[in-house]
Order: sequence, then C-alpha cells, then structure tokens
Amino acid sequence: MKAYKDLSREELQELQTKLQAEYDKLKQAGIKLDMSRGKPGSDQLDLSSPMLDLLNSTSSFRGVNDLDIRNYGLLDGIAEAKELFAELMECTPDHVMVCGNSSLSIMYDLITRAMTHGIGGNTPWCKLEHVKFLCPVPGYDRHFAITEHFGIEMISIPMDENGPDMDLVEQYVNHDPMVKGIWNVPKYTNPAGIVYSDEVVRRFARLKPAAPDFRIFWDNAYVIHDLYPDNKGKLLNIVEECEKAGNPDMYYELCSTSKVTFPGSGVAALITSPANVEETKKLMSWQTIGYDKVNQMRHVLYFKNVAGMRAHMEKHADILRPKFEAVLNCLEKELGGLEIGSWIKPLGGYFIAFDTLEGCAKRVVGLCKDAGVIMTPAGSTYPYKNDPSDTSIRIAPTYPTADELKQACEVFVLCVKLASVEKYLASAN
Amino acid sequence: MKAYKDLSREELQELQTKLQAEYDKLKQAGIKLDMSRGKPGSDQLDLSSPMLDLLNSTSSFRGVNDLDIRNYGLLDGIAEAKELFAELMECTPDHVMVCGNSSLSIMYDLITRAMTHGIGGNTPWCKLEHVKFLCPVPGYDRHFAITEHFGIEMISIPMDENGPDMDLVEQYVNHDPMVKGIWNVPKYTNPAGIVYSDEVVRRFARLKPAAPDFRIFWDNAYVIHDLYPDNKGKLLNIVEECEKAGNPDMYYELCSTSKVTFPGSGVAALITSPANVEETKKLMSWQTIGYDKVNQMRHVLYFKNVAGMRAHMEKHADILRPKFEAVLNCLEKELGGLEIGSWIKPLGGYFIAFDTLEGCAKRVVGLCKDAGVIMTPAGSTYPYKNDPSDTSIRIAPTYPTADELKQACEVFVLCVKLASVEKYLASAN
Repeated sequence: MKAYKDLSREELQELQTKLQAEYDKLKQAGIKLDMSRGKPGSDQLDLSSPMLDLLNSTSSFRGVNDLDIRNYGLLDGIAEAKELFAELMECTPDHVMVCGNSSLSIMYDLITRAMTHGIGGNTPWCKLEHVKFLCPVPGYDRHFAITEHFGIEMISIPMDENGPDMDLVEQYVNHDPMVKGIWNVPKYTNPAGIVYSDEVVRRFARLKPAAPDFRIFWDNAYVIHDLYPDNKGKLLNIVEECEKAGNPDMYYELCSTSKVTFPGSGVAALITSPANVEETKKLMSWQTIGYDKVNQMRHVLYFKNVAGMRAHMEKHADILRPKFEAVLNCLEKELGGLEIGSWIKPLGGYFIAFDTLEGCAKRVVGLCKDAGVIMTPAGSTYPYKNDPSDTSIRIAPTYPTADELKQACEVFVLCVKLASVEKYLASAN
Repeated sequence: MKAYKDLSREELQELQTKLQAEYDKLKQAGIKLDMSRGKPGSDQLDLSSPMLDLLNSTSSFRGVNDLDIRNYGLLDGIAEAKELFAELMECTPDHVMVCGNSSLSIMYDLITRAMTHGIGGNTPWCKLEHVKFLCPVPGYDRHFAITEHFGIEMISIPMDENGPDMDLVEQYVNHDPMVKGIWNVPKYTNPAGIVYSDEVVRRFARLKPAAPDFRIFWDNAYVIHDLYPDNKGKLLNIVEECEKAGNPDMYYELCSTSKVTFPGSGVAALITSPANVEETKKLMSWQTIGYDKVNQMRHVLYFKNVAGMRAHMEKHADILRPKFEAVLNCLEKELGGLEIGSWIKPLGGYFIAFDTLEGCAKRVVGLCKDAGVIMTPAGSTYPYKNDPSDTSIRIAPTYPTADELKQACEVFVLCVKLASVEKYLASAN
C-alpha cells in the first residue's frame, strides 16, 4: 500500500469516493458502540465477585487489635489493608492511608485542601494570585479537569517514550514558585501507555522546587495492570527515590483496586511520607470519621498478599490482551504503511494512544460518532481540552466485546483514512 | 433527700468528705469506660450482618436499566437506592442523591464547594470578607468543627424544648447577608434529644434570607432512630414545608444508615431540591465518578422498603432502650431532688444531655476522666468548644454494655455530686 502523501490528486479523489461510499454504508448499519472510557468489561468484574462471599453473617469482623471493623474509626484504614498496599507499593505501612472507593477523590481532596488550607503550613492556594500545574501530555482528562475547576493554570509538558521532557519540568519547577504540582500517570501513561524511564523518575526525585509546597502527583493507577506477565513495564519506586534524594515529602502517590476488583466498589490508597500522612489525616478528620473498613477487609481476605493480587491480574490480562491485540492488529493491517497515523503498542494500562495527521483528530472522532462509534472527544487528553496540533485520539479497548471491538475498529480506521484523504485533498487545493 | 442548695456549710463539708472517700475508692478500681461517642454496640451491628449474605458470587449485579452495578457510573446513586431514600424521607427520587458511607462527608463537601465555588452562582465564600453560620446549642461537635475549620464565624442560638429560638434565627437570617447557613439536627437533637416543633419547622421554611445562598443544613441523622415504637417523635417534612413556603432550594437535608446498618459501611444520602441536586451533581463530577453502588444495592435488597427499615430499627430500639433507661433511672435515683443537675428523657437518638450547676461541667468531666470514665469533653457541644455557662455534658449510652453502663453511671453521678458540693462550698467561702 502506498503512503497517502505520495498519492496523486486523482488517486486521492478516487480513494475518497470509495471510502465515502463505504462510510455511508456503515452509517446505515445502525452501529452503537462506545470506546470512550477505560471501563472493565463485565467478564473482568466477574473475576472478583467471589470476594463478596468472604464476609457474611457468620464472620467475626474483628481486625488486629480486636477492633470491630463494622464500627466507626480508623481514619487511615485497617492495619491489614495498609500492609497489603505497603507490600504492593513497596514501602512501609506508615506511608499508607487506605481510603474509600476512588483515588480520583483522594486527589481532588488533596487539591481542595491545598486550596483552602494549604500544604505544610504554606499559604492556601486560593489566597494566591496565581497557581500553576504542569501537565505532561497527552494525559488523563480527569486530572486536568480538577486543576481547571480550581482555576489553576495548566502548562503542557510534551512527553516522549521515556516520559515528560524533564529539562522543561526542571526549568519550571526549580525556578517558578507558582508551580505547585505536576500530574503524572507514570506507568502505562493514560493514554500513551509508556512507562517513565529510571532516569526520568530519578530526575523527578531530585527536583529542587522553588515552591516549598510543590508536590508530584504520582497517579500509579496501573501499577500491576500488565498485559504480558513475561514482559512487564518496570517503574522505579518514587517513595525510595524521593527519600534517597532528600525530598521525602515531595510526592503524593495514588493507587486503587478500581480496575483490580470493582470500579466504584474497590479500595483506593494514598502513599506518601509519614509526615504527609500525619498532615493529611489531620485535615481529613474534618471530612470523615473513616472509610469503608468492611470493604477494605474484604479485599485483604480475598487477595491475602501481593502474590494473590498478581495472580488475579493475570486473569484480567488474559481477557484484555486479545482486545488490545485486536485493535493493534487492525491498525497495523489497515493503516500500516499509509503514513496517516502512529501508535505505540502498550505493555499494560487501559488505553492505546493514536496520533492522526496534524489537524485530523477532531474530524476522525466526529466521523466515528456519526457512524455510531463513540470515542473520547479529541483534545480531552490535553489541558483545557485543547490539543494544539489536533492529532491525539485515545482508544479505550477494554469495555466492548471482541466482536464489537472488531466492528468499532473497522469504523475507526475507515474514519482515519477518510479524514486523511480529506486533509490531503484540501491542502492540494 | 435534701437539695444541695439547702445544705448548711457543715452538711456540705461532711458530704464532701464522704463523697471524696467514695471517689478515691472508685479511682483505685481501675475502671476504663467510654461514654464519649455515639457508637452502636457490636450487638447492634450484628443485626445488619445478614445484609452481607445478599450479594455474592452468584448475584446478577444488574440494576434497573440493566446497568452492572459493579462498574463505573451513576454519580447520584442507583435508582433503587434513590427510591428507598425517597420513601424514607417522604419526597420524590429527583430530590435524592445517594452517596458514600458518610453524611458528614456530604456536609463537609457541601461547605467546601460553597467555599471554593459558591452556591447558585453566588460569590464563593472564600472570596468574602466574612461568613457566618448559626449554631443552635447544644449541638453536634462535628458540625461546629467543619465551620470552625473554614474560618466561618459561628453564632450560638439557644434552644428550648421546641427547637432553636426562632426570633433570633429570623433576626439573623432575614437581615444579615453574611449569615449563610444554620446547622440543625432537627429530630432527637444531638445531644438534647428534642424534636423541633411544627411551628419551628414552619418558621424555618418561611425564612426570608438576606443572603441568596443561605442554606438550612438539616442533618436528619436520627430520622427513624426511635426508642419507643408507640411514642415516636414527629418532625414536619422540611422538603414539603420549604416547597409550600416558596423556598424550595433553601435546605440541604442529610441522612444515613450509619446507625441503621454499619457506621463506616453504610450509605448516606443528600435530600434537596431537584435544582440543588443538579448543581451538586455538576460540582461533584470533578471529585468522583460515583460511590459504592454494590453497597447501595446490598442495602436495598436487605430492607426492600421503609417498612423493612422500620422493623429493623425496632430491633435496635430493643437493644438501646434498656441502656437509655439504665442511665435515666440512675440519674433519677441518685440525683433526683438534689437540684444539682437536669436532663430530658429523649424518645430517640443517641444521646442524653445533662446540665450541671453553672460552672461545673468541666469539673465533672475531669473527675470522671480521673476515675477512668471518658465523657465527651465539656464544651464540645458549643461552637469553639466554649460553653459559656459550663453546664452542658453529653452522655452517650449506646456503646458500653449494660454492666459497664451501670458502673459508668455510678461514677458519673458521684462526680456530679462531688463537683456540686465543691461549688457550693467555694461560693460559701
């Protein structure tokens, strides 16, 4: 197959006619598919349902220290859950707060408290003229939504296959006291699926922030969400690296079981220095008496330890791998050699990032929508939903069934082709 | 028994010697009891444990609309739970948001969002010079803690057996635009156990706030927490009354199953106008994708309807009634006629409020503590923990066993006697 850029005007016009006919036919098919969000499929949720058999009316509900886990108390979670997350995140339990069902809420609450009460005795951000956050792009739309919601200025930081441009990160963080934080999904980035290199993590740990209340938001959402048991992404431990670098309080690391057990009925944890844990516990004490300890215990009993979690995640991988590969194979088969798009094959996480020709992402997503396939809106992976080159599309292959996915991919590649031909024809005018 | 105020100096001294000897003996007994918090006992928690048998690995997890309740989504809760809470709170489901495990968190979040983003398009409270809240006293310490945490000025409003002094409430709310809210536990007030009269509720509904973003915080924490099935407190419906009075958006009503099923593993709900629900959902969408729907469904399946909840609450009442009566009988038997304290017999809720002679509450609580009985710190039921007359003590009789309660009460009444004698002797000097 010839690259589109090498086609003549006549060839392009002929191709457009053919593609448009295919597209019009597809539009009539009444397709209704959703590849917009990183949702597990019901078969994945079934993997965890036996967890619900473990605590029942015959259980003792007594944790260590003989505490009745059904009652009030333990703001930072049951000791058993702290140990499980400490093992998972490779730190000691005094670095762990086990919370409710959402790491997004933990992050939102951290930002909210920084706004209203400040971090480490520094001025609350809402009292400052100007607060800035760095946003490696493409990134997680819900991160950017939080900072936008609070009027925090967001600065895009480009990423390559090793992670964010650390020269730029250092330039901002080390010299601008208004830069208070940076969003990261360091392992299997959302959406590109890359893993931050050791050098990148070390440079993060060695930052010398101009702002004493600067924090790295390290959303380790896919810490054990590998697709290939024999080829796992490896991420340096931010806890250890920050401690080694003399910056023990500089990070808030997040994780959750939303995509391990149940989205909405999982358990999320904050991993940070013991000093930050103390500060957070104190500030959290106005908000709640404690999170759902019964659900925490259910998770502990089900997994027992991290080996149990890893074995469980292999079952998820067995379900997800064919879905990712179906998309990747379709992209390769249909778009390989055409030079109208690029993508990276991820080793884990929940997304495939696809880059169109410049200025084509919105058009592709619009074409998909009109043909009944909902993609994440183009631009969502950038601050202010503004992807300046309009190239970035996030593909979420986890929720549809294999058959649906095949159909959705066919629609997608057709839309990419059509939009690309349109672009070349327009530029030839 | 003669009232202490009528005792001569010699009689008081003789009494003090005797009481002090009893107290010193008690102190040696190594008692360790806690009557400080409104925690259910484990026997109460056992009542709800069968709920945990209802969802297990064989369940379908399909709600109405065929939604998989284990997955992401439904920010305002599953339809089934909204219906249950709507029936309980006597409103339509469009007035209901079913959230996580804590009504305290809902209230904290409402205040936080009012601080950072404002209510109904009005200026965020954090941008205002001065924000005031009215606090009927004695009241719930965690309410006052939230407003204090945000630097909101708290104004105490005295209560009698009908509720807050509504002349004063109207004077503040209708004339001072800085008054943005009022905290209430309208049924079985914490700690006095009174129920707001119909006239008080109607005057609340008919307020004409100077501030367009004024809200009544109506923490209906004990909505079905009656001690006597045949003699229940009756509270007018704030939803209906506010709608009738043309103030449909003026209230946020809260309720939860923390003391129906499990504290920490229950379900909490916000009841407010459909317009407020829309506003809250929008602002909440930055914080979370949704709450624990599996736990919501567990509650729906267990109770089925409000009749099921009421039958369940009668079992709680059977456990709690003897505890309340043990305390009340001890107070009556040991302190009746002495005129050194007063209390109201509540028909529900979780507390008994005890008023000492002026200036004695701190001393009583201190004496109790030294004898091994932990009471809620004196003053806690007032804004800034400052009870100007130092008379208010909150007794929480629910958590200790009957035997422990008997022992704790004996310590308490002895401490009341001792502190009262000390007061009269000091004033006689």
